[in-house]
Amino acid sequence: MNYRMIAQLLGKVLCTIAAVLLLPAIICLLYGESPFPFLAVTLMMAACGAVLLRFRPKLQKIYAAEGFVVVGLSWILLSLFGALPFVLSGDIPNYIDAVFETVSGFTTTGASNLPDVEALSRGAVFWRSLTHFLGGMGVLVFIMAVLPMSGSRSIHIMRAEVPGPIVGKLVPSARKTAMLLYGIYIAMTVLEMILLICGGMSVFDSVIHAFGTAGTGGFSSRALSIGYYDSAYIDAVVTIFMILFGVNFNLYYLILLGKGLEALKSEELHWYLGVVVFSAVSIALNLGRAYGDFFHNLRYSFFQVASIISTTGYGTADFNLWPTYSKWLLVLLMFFGACAGSTGGGLKFSRILILGKSIRLELRKQLRPHSVSIERLEGKPIGEATIHSTLVFFACYLFLFFLGTVIVSTDGLDLTTTFTSVVACLSNIGPGLELVGPMGSYIMFSPLSKIVLSLLMLLGRLEIFPILMLFSPRVWKK
Amino acid sequence: MNYRMIAQLLGKVLCTIAAVLLLPAIICLLYGESPFPFLAVTLMMAACGAVLLRFRPKLQKIYAAEGFVVVGLSWILLSLFGALPFVLSGDIPNYIDAVFETVSGFTTTGASNLPDVEALSRGAVFWRSLTHFLGGMGVLVFIMAVLPMSGSRSIHIMRAEVPGPIVGKLVPSARKTAMLLYGIYIAMTVLEMILLICGGMSVFDSVIHAFGTAGTGGFSSRALSIGYYDSAYIDAVVTIFMILFGVNFNLYYLILLGKGLEALKSEELHWYLGVVVFSAVSIALNLGRAYGDFFHNLRYSFFQVASIISTTGYGTADFNLWPTYSKWLLVLLMFFGACAGSTGGGLKFSRILILGKSIRLELRKQLRPHSVSIERLEGKPIGEATIHSTLVFFACYLFLFFLGTVIVSTDGLDLTTTFTSVVACLSNIGPGLELVGPMGSYIMFSPLSKIVLSLLMLLGRLEIFPILMLFSPRVWKK
Repeated sequence: MNYRMIAQLLGKVLCTIAAVLLLPAIICLLYGESPFPFLAVTLMMAACGAVLLRFRPKLQKIYAAEGFVVVGLSWILLSLFGALPFVLSGDIPNYIDAVFETVSGFTTTGASNLPDVEALSRGAVFWRSLTHFLGGMGVLVFIMAVLPMSGSRSIHIMRAEVPGPIVGKLVPSARKTAMLLYGIYIAMTVLEMILLICGGMSVFDSVIHAFGTAGTGGFSSRALSIGYYDSAYIDAVVTIFMILFGVNFNLYYLILLGKGLEALKSEELHWYLGVVVFSAVSIALNLGRAYGDFFHNLRYSFFQVASIISTTGYGTADFNLWPTYSKWLLVLLMFFGACAGSTGGGLKFSRILILGKSIRLELRKQLRPHSVSIERLEGKPIGEATIHSTLVFFACYLFLFFLGTVIVSTDGLDLTTTFTSVVACLSNIGPGLELVGPMGSYIMFSPLSKIVLSLLMLLGRLEIFPILMLFSPRVWKK
Repeated sequence: MNYRMIAQLLGKVLCTIAAVLLLPAIICLLYGESPFPFLAVTLMMAACGAVLLRFRPKLQKIYAAEGFVVVGLSWILLSLFGALPFVLSGDIPNYIDAVFETVSGFTTTGASNLPDVEALSRGAVFWRSLTHFLGGMGVLVFIMAVLPMSGSRSIHIMRAEVPGPIVGKLVPSARKTAMLLYGIYIAMTVLEMILLICGGMSVFDSVIHAFGTAGTGGFSSRALSIGYYDSAYIDAVVTIFMILFGVNFNLYYLILLGKGLEALKSEELHWYLGVVVFSAVSIALNLGRAYGDFFHNLRYSFFQVASIISTTGYGTADFNLWPTYSKWLLVLLMFFGACAGSTGGGLKFSRILILGKSIRLELRKQLRPHSVSIERLEGKPIGEATIHSTLVFFACYLFLFFLGTVIVSTDGLDLTTTFTSVVACLSNIGPGLELVGPMGSYIMFSPLSKIVLSLLMLLGRLEIFPILMLFSPRVWKK
C-alpha cells in the first residue's frame, strides 16, 4: 500500500473542494447571508489538505487497492467536512443529521432528514445541491479533470468511482476522459437550466433543480419538489433530462464523434428505454381515473418512472397513494437503477442484462454439461470474470440490503418504511414508501439508523467495494 | 431426448401413486366416509399409467435433460391428478383451488386456500397431509426406493429432485441411497408421532402433524395449527423435529455409520443452528413483555424461528402482530430456508455459505487481480462451476420472486401481503404476513395469482431448473 501517494491524493481532494466551497460563500453574499460558515470550513479543509500534500510519494504508481482506498476515504472525508457548514450556519444543528444530509447529497441520493427544506438559508440550499452535482459525475473524476495528475495508472481511481461493471477510457488519457465527461455533463446541465428558466422557474431554483437532475440526486428547494410548479412543460423537461442523465455517458461521446447511429444500437439503452416505456404505460393503466384519464395519468407515471429508474427521486405526485401494482413496480425499479457509466445509482441495467444472460448460459450448461457457449453484451462476448464479478456484486447488494433492513427494523417503524428506506438509500434514490414516501422525510430515524443509512448510501454510490475494502485488514498490510 | 424412457418412468410414477391413493381410501372406510373419490382417481391414474408403461425404451440410458423433464412432468401430473379427489368428494369444489392445495401439499409449502380446514372430511385431511410426506423426501426418490430401477444413471433423477447445490450418493447405488433416505425419514416420522401421542394428541392428529413436520410442510388438521393444543411439551417436540427435518439427511447417515463426530463438524449445520439460536434469542428480546417475560417469549420465538427456517410453517402465535424487527427477521429467514439435502425449502444454507465465500474471494480478486485463491466448504475446495451455478441459482430465485410479485400485485392487495405471499410460496413455507399471516389464508387471491403461486411453489421445491427446462424449446429437440 502506497501510503504517501494516498495522503497526497487526499490532500489534493481536500484543497480542491475547499476552493469549491467558495461558491456557496458567494451565494451567501449575493443573498445577504453570512458567508462565515463556508469560509471557516474552506480554511479548515485547506489547512488539512496542505498538511497531507507535504507527503511526497517515493513511487508514483498506484494499483487497484490504492484506487479503492483513495476513493473510499475521499468520500468519507468530504462528507464529514461538507456537513460542517450546515452545523455552523445553524441550518442543521445536529452533526449526525448534517452528515446524513451531506452524504445524501454527495451520493446523489436526495433523502432528506430536514423538517422543512424551505426554511434553509440560500447558501445551505445551494451547497446541498452542489454536492449532487459534484457527486454525480464523481469527486475524483472532477479532480482529475481540473488538476494535472502525476503518476500513471490513474485509471484505477476512475474505475473505483465511475459506476458500472466495466469502465473503459473514452480516450487513451484518463485525464482527457475526465475532462470530456465533465464537459458533456456541464453542457447538459446548463441546457436544462435554460429550458427551466424558459418555463418560468426562477434562476436560483433552475440551478438547484438542474444540479438535482444532473447528478440524479433529487434535492429540491421546494417542499413539494417539482410538483410545486404544477406545469406540464416543467414536468416534461425534467422527465426528459432525468432519463438522459440515466444514460451511459459513453453514448454521448459517440454522438460527439458523429457516431450517433452506433450509440443508438446500444443494447443497454434499448432495455433501459423499453423498461421506462413499459413501466410508465402499465402504471398509467393501473392508475385508472386517478388523474382524469389514461393520457393524463401518463404525465405523472412517466415522470415518476423516470425519477425512480434514473434514481433521481423528484416527485410530482404522492405515489405512496397509488395502487399496489404501481407502488410495487416502482419498488422493483429502485433495485434496477439506471445505465452503467451514468450518474444514476442502483444495480445498473448492464448488470441486470449480464445476470439475465448468465441464467441462459447456466440453463444450457445444466442440460449439456460439457458444451461450451458464450453470451454477448453490446456485441462483445461477456468474459467469465465479468459474469462472476457481476453475480458477486448482485449478491453483495442484496446482503447489504438484508443487513441494513435488520438494523433499521429495530427502530420499530412499519415494514414498508423499513425496507423501502433501505433500498432508497442503497440505490441512491431518496424517497421510498409510507413514512419515507415522496411527501415524507427521514427525520424519525434513530441516530444509529441514520448512520447505517448514510453508510449504505456511500456503499451504493461507490458500488460497494471501495467502502468495503476500508474494513479489510488485508488492504492495510504493507 | 429419450421420449420412450420418459413415458415409461411417468407410467411408473402414476401407477405407484395410484396405489398410494388406496391409503386415504382406507381412512375413509375407517371413519365411515365414502372411499369413492379416491378409488375413482386410483383407477384413472392406473389406467393412464398402464398406457404409458407400454412404451418400451430402446435405450435405457438417461441424461441430465431426461432427469429434469421426468421430475418436472411427474410433479405437475401428480398435482393435477392429486387434486381430483378433493373435487370429487366436494371438499374443494373449485378445481383451481384444489390444484393450489395439492401443489401446496406436494411441494411441502402448506399454504392453504380453504375457508375452514376443520370442515374437511377425514380422508381429505389425510390425503392433504400425505402429499407433504411424499413430497418432502421426493416422489421419484420414493419410486426409486420401492421399484427396481432399470437403466443406469438414475442419479440424474435424484439430482433433479433432491434439494441442494451438490447431490452425492450416500452409497454407490442410487436405489440403495433412496431406500436409506426413506428409512431414516420414516423412522424419524414414527418417533415424532409416538412422542406427540405421549403428549395427549389423538392418533389421527399425531399422524397429520408428524407428516406435516417430516415434509416441513405445515398443513394441520386444526385451524389454530399447533397453537390449538397450547402445550409446552407439544411445542417443544414439534420445534425440535422441525429443526431436525431441516438438517441434511447425509448427517443422519453418518450417525448411523457411527461417524457422529464427523457429522457434528458440518459447517452448514453450525451456521444453521447458529442462525436459529441467534434469531430466536433476539426475537425473544424484541418481543418485550408480549408473553410475560424473556423466557416465556423464548417458547414462541424458538417455535416460530424453527417453523420458518425449516420452511414448515406451523404456528403457535400470530407473529403478524409482533414488532417490526421480529417480523422482518422472519421474512428474511423465509429466503434462507433449511440445509441442503433436507426436506426443507428456500435457498438453503449451503448456498448462502457459498455466496458468502464467493464474496470474500471476489474482494481478494479485486485487490490482486492476478492472485489465485480458493475457499472451502465442509473442508472441500469449492469449484468455480459450483460457485457459478449457485450465484445463477440465487439470481434466478430473485428474478422469480420479482416476476411473481409483479403479477400478484395486480390483485391490488396490500404490499406486505403481496410480497410475503410470493416468498412464502417460492420458499415453500406457507404463511406470510398480513392477509396471508399465520391466522390468514390464500383464499382471496384471483385464479391467475393462484396459478402463478402454484407454479412458484413447484419452481421452489424442484429448485427451478426442472420446471424451467419444460419451457425451453432446446430441451424438446431430438
